[in-house]
Amino acid sequence: MEAQQTVKRALEGDRRAIARLISLVEDGGSELPEVMKSLYPHTGGAYSIGITGAPGAGKSTLTERLIGRARADEHKVGVLAVDPSSPFSGGALLGDRVRMQSHATDPDVFIRSMATRGHLGGISLATPEAVRVLDASGKDLIVIETVGVGQAEVEITDACDTTLVVLNPGWGDAVQANKAGLMEIADVFVVNKADRQGTRDTVRELNQMLEMSESGRKPEIVETVATKGEGIDALWDAIEAHRSYQNEAGLLEARRRRRIARELREIVAARFRTRVETETADLLEELTGEVVARRMDPYAAAEKLIATL
Amino acid sequence: MEAQQTVKRALEGDRRAIARLISLVEDGGSELPEVMKSLYPHTGGAYSIGITGAPGAGKSTLTERLIGRARADEHKVGVLAVDPSSPFSGGALLGDRVRMQSHATDPDVFIRSMATRGHLGGISLATPEAVRVLDASGKDLIVIETVGVGQAEVEITDACDTTLVVLNPGWGDAVQANKAGLMEIADVFVVNKADRQGTRDTVRELNQMLEMSESGRKPEIVETVATKGEGIDALWDAIEAHRSYQNEAGLLEARRRRRIARELREIVAARFRTRVETETADLLEELTGEVVARRMDPYAAAEKLIATL
Repeated sequence: MEAQQTVKRALEGDRRAIARLISLVEDGGSELPEVMKSLYPHTGGAYSIGITGAPGAGKSTLTERLIGRARADEHKVGVLAVDPSSPFSGGALLGDRVRMQSHATDPDVFIRSMATRGHLGGISLATPEAVRVLDASGKDLIVIETVGVGQAEVEITDACDTTLVVLNPGWGDAVQANKAGLMEIADVFVVNKADRQGTRDTVRELNQMLEMSESGRKPEIVETVATKGEGIDALWDAIEAHRSYQNEAGLLEARRRRRIARELREIVAARFRTRVETETADLLEELTGEVVARRMDPYAAAEKLIATL
Repeated sequence: MEAQQTVKRALEGDRRAIARLISLVEDGGSELPEVMKSLYPHTGGAYSIGITGAPGAGKSTLTERLIGRARADEHKVGVLAVDPSSPFSGGALLGDRVRMQSHATDPDVFIRSMATRGHLGGISLATPEAVRVLDASGKDLIVIETVGVGQAEVEITDACDTTLVVLNPGWGDAVQANKAGLMEIADVFVVNKADRQGTRDTVRELNQMLEMSESGRKPEIVETVATKGEGIDALWDAIEAHRSYQNEAGLLEARRRRRIARELREIVAARFRTRVETETADLLEELTGEVVARRMDPYAAAEKLIATL
């Protein structure tokens, strides 16, 4: 890849160039630092929305509806469907991508599944970089959808400007959300499939749990039926309200600072993780043998590795 | 804590001492390396089983049944209920712990919820250390149950000797398991709640997906109704069969070597992540400001941090 040519075309909004840069992020190619350096000054214009929730909760359908709503306001939209648990972007989320095909021909919408094949920092580091590719290419609204609700998904969606947590009606779903650590990260709760029984109970459970938590602003709870497009305007308004609140309270910059500090720490950690493999491969193998044989404990072995770096 | 006293008592199987050491692992206390060094020579005797699956799949009930089955063979059992997404061990999984109370008075069963409050390497590093505490205390069978199916859960249960993936009947659950990257890590599939409709379809879907994958040994699929204790003997046999297979094929040591090598890499990465915060705190804050203002890109900022370490 002639990296700088591709960067130039991506900055002009060229779809193939954008796709190639996101693949570069996934693969963790050697040109990545150079490419990110070139893109970085062109970023900062986009607002990001994270969507998390259990598999099957309707996140993809909600994403598709949000794209439609955003396009009505002439936003240029980038979507990343992120699968932290798979090294394959194409296959895993193909179904979801197909479902979003209603926007596939819109030149101002770019939808892309993403996983990690080779990025040294894993998906938690790869995602903000892919967001920057979209941001630099002129997308001013970026939606990051994850497949599940594990730690990585929480980290990914927490690294957005507004985080949506999607639940379904039914006893226990709010309890499960609490278990999964979602109460702390949600800026807006979406109770999707709200034409089903149990919606009122789920909303009540959520409200009870939110009252027990001690966070600042109480997240809004929005009921939607994404398949029918119901509640999407209310959801859009709730996102806008959270955005305004953060802007007025000066919280958005603080949130972005925390995010950058965390990213820097993770780049450093990832760099050393790689250096262990590249620079001390023989020693790593030798020490692993010593630890497996219980002649040395893992901390002592790690100290020896650190001493050689 | 007089660490060495606690270690001594934990090695004798003292429950309070074991609990204190696991809390020390969670908190990432400064005595941790010393404690792990003392425990390490006493480890290596335990076999570990990981259980992952979507929230609500019945993992806790299965775990409880497996404890009962293991006790019938006079195994001494340790259970870690791991929540990678929460910093609080007590609250999040309290429900599950209460449900396992049928074994609470058995001196040869130790059940403990676990999260990460302060461990520098997060839950992925804390879990093997907690396993070693149980191992050193004389438990010869250790069950690690996770709350969900995200990346962290997959990493945690993949770090066991035998990994169980729990599904429920119902269209799409096998597909979701595939999406979540569970097909690659499962040594045994458990279709729990197998008295419900759709069991046969789920088993068929699983078989189809397993035929498409190119792994070595085809995982067994076991149907259970954990609430009624049905299928538990078959599950136990499937675990034993996988254990024997690995032993005979010489795969268990290879598996444990991979695990240790990964752990060493992660200890090194975590050490540098911490050093960024402790040794370069002012520089980190200054560089974060530069990056947020877009006067510097994250890679360049990370290089500056690395140069000072």
